[in-house]
Amino acid sequence: MSTPFFQPDSNIVKPYALMDLDDTLFQTQRKIDKWDLPTADVEDLVYATVNKENEPLSLMTQRQANLFNWLLISTELIAVTARDRDEIKRVKLPLDSWQVLTHGATIIQPNGDRLNSWLQHIYRELKPLQDKLKQLSQLFDKHSKSDDSQLVFKAHTDSFNNGSVNEDLTIYLAIKHAQKNHQALVELAKQLPHLVRDFDDDFYVHVNANNLAILPHAIHKRHAVQFLLDNHLDNERPSFGFGDSLADLPFLQLLDWYGMPNHGQLHNQLDAK
Amino acid sequence: MSTPFFQPDSNIVKPYALMDLDDTLFQTQRKIDKWDLPTADVEDLVYATVNKENEPLSLMTQRQANLFNWLLISTELIAVTARDRDEIKRVKLPLDSWQVLTHGATIIQPNGDRLNSWLQHIYRELKPLQDKLKQLSQLFDKHSKSDDSQLVFKAHTDSFNNGSVNEDLTIYLAIKHAQKNHQALVELAKQLPHLVRDFDDDFYVHVNANNLAILPHAIHKRHAVQFLLDNHLDNERPSFGFGDSLADLPFLQLLDWYGMPNHGQLHNQLDAK
Repeated sequence: MSTPFFQPDSNIVKPYALMDLDDTLFQTQRKIDKWDLPTADVEDLVYATVNKENEPLSLMTQRQANLFNWLLISTELIAVTARDRDEIKRVKLPLDSWQVLTHGATIIQPNGDRLNSWLQHIYRELKPLQDKLKQLSQLFDKHSKSDDSQLVFKAHTDSFNNGSVNEDLTIYLAIKHAQKNHQALVELAKQLPHLVRDFDDDFYVHVNANNLAILPHAIHKRHAVQFLLDNHLDNERPSFGFGDSLADLPFLQLLDWYGMPNHGQLHNQLDAK
Repeated sequence: MSTPFFQPDSNIVKPYALMDLDDTLFQTQRKIDKWDLPTADVEDLVYATVNKENEPLSLMTQRQANLFNWLLISTELIAVTARDRDEIKRVKLPLDSWQVLTHGATIIQPNGDRLNSWLQHIYRELKPLQDKLKQLSQLFDKHSKSDDSQLVFKAHTDSFNNGSVNEDLTIYLAIKHAQKNHQALVELAKQLPHLVRDFDDDFYVHVNANNLAILPHAIHKRHAVQFLLDNHLDNERPSFGFGDSLADLPFLQLLDWYGMPNHGQLHNQLDAK
């Protein structure tokens, strides 16, 4: 049989679109202004998320809403986000396929349930690190409650069923700066390996804008996306994805085509070449 | 009027997909092997191009063909390529929207005609450089015909109507290495500004794999894509695009989201970070 030439086929194989959410598909008004995004007149905007008080927060420009609407219908859209299971509820978009949450610690199936095989894997990885994560938590909790601290600390936890009982485990630690001082977070990230013994053996740090995350090595969007690709997604279907952050790059590079919005950390990195 | 939340809409606004062709959407068997592309068993491949002798040449893997078929139907697909008006005929794919050819020197309208406003602009830019381009052509032509030369030289020309008569103008110069010696081309690119007086004032050089191009500053995919976006494309429609080459980056960064295949020059650049 000789190899044929390409022929258009009305039977479409939808690609997987693995998409970071915040600052890739929507963002706050502050960042719309900072990045001077097009089609962002007030009448062109729609809300995409709410804050903890259930008030409207992040927005899509007209082009972003058009792209998102098209992604929903034309692709199998898989969210890949740092948001945890509580935080994803504040995203008011109809996500109904696989979801990768909490920096890859959680995989949600299309039916809405957590994927048990991944939950068990993450449980086994996190369990031995709980003492260290709790010590770190206490350290930051205490510091962030001191009068002169500008750090806002949050431990991200979830319940895991170890086969018999539900157990709350700490997954990762997040630190923001009250004045959104990115450079202060960069400095803190540099100091961490020197402040905590054997830090690099167990953890890595990621900083983007006003977010610093301290993560166990087992927790990474890349690991979860690799697991999905290997075990649950169809091999003949093409994949592409976008993310704004350097921390997205390892998962993006697992896809057939990958990229970024024309602003943000990853774009600035390429732009500086 | 208060800002609404996003609502899915069955009325889809198709995005513009501005796509480099060679090594982004298809490639030769040699590169399929080099990049170890998935879904590239012989029965999964389809041809996308022919060579000068009209023999099948470049191929799409199963995933690439699935992505291309989906792009055709789900987006407004705009090819952005170094191929000139002859070379694009060897691409056996149904491209029926705008096309940016010859590194941006040519814009083809959806009806198949060249866009006259861009043709006139490029004519005015190229006309004053013809003496210098012809001198360079003679130099390389002579060198490439000497017995010990490994350089394969080609001047890319096209006919321009200056308002009264058709005139053949040289657009850019292409040099390949007979043994596909990329490093030899890199070395040549470094020497060019020293071999030709005021070279940088008029020209720039781009090298990717076995292609070296000497281009007038006015000839760049970015300029043509900027012109299309400003004058012929709808402002509310989102745009994205992929390219494999560092020379694609300036046009890609005009789009709302942009990226690359997970192999090739641009990918290697990001990978090395």
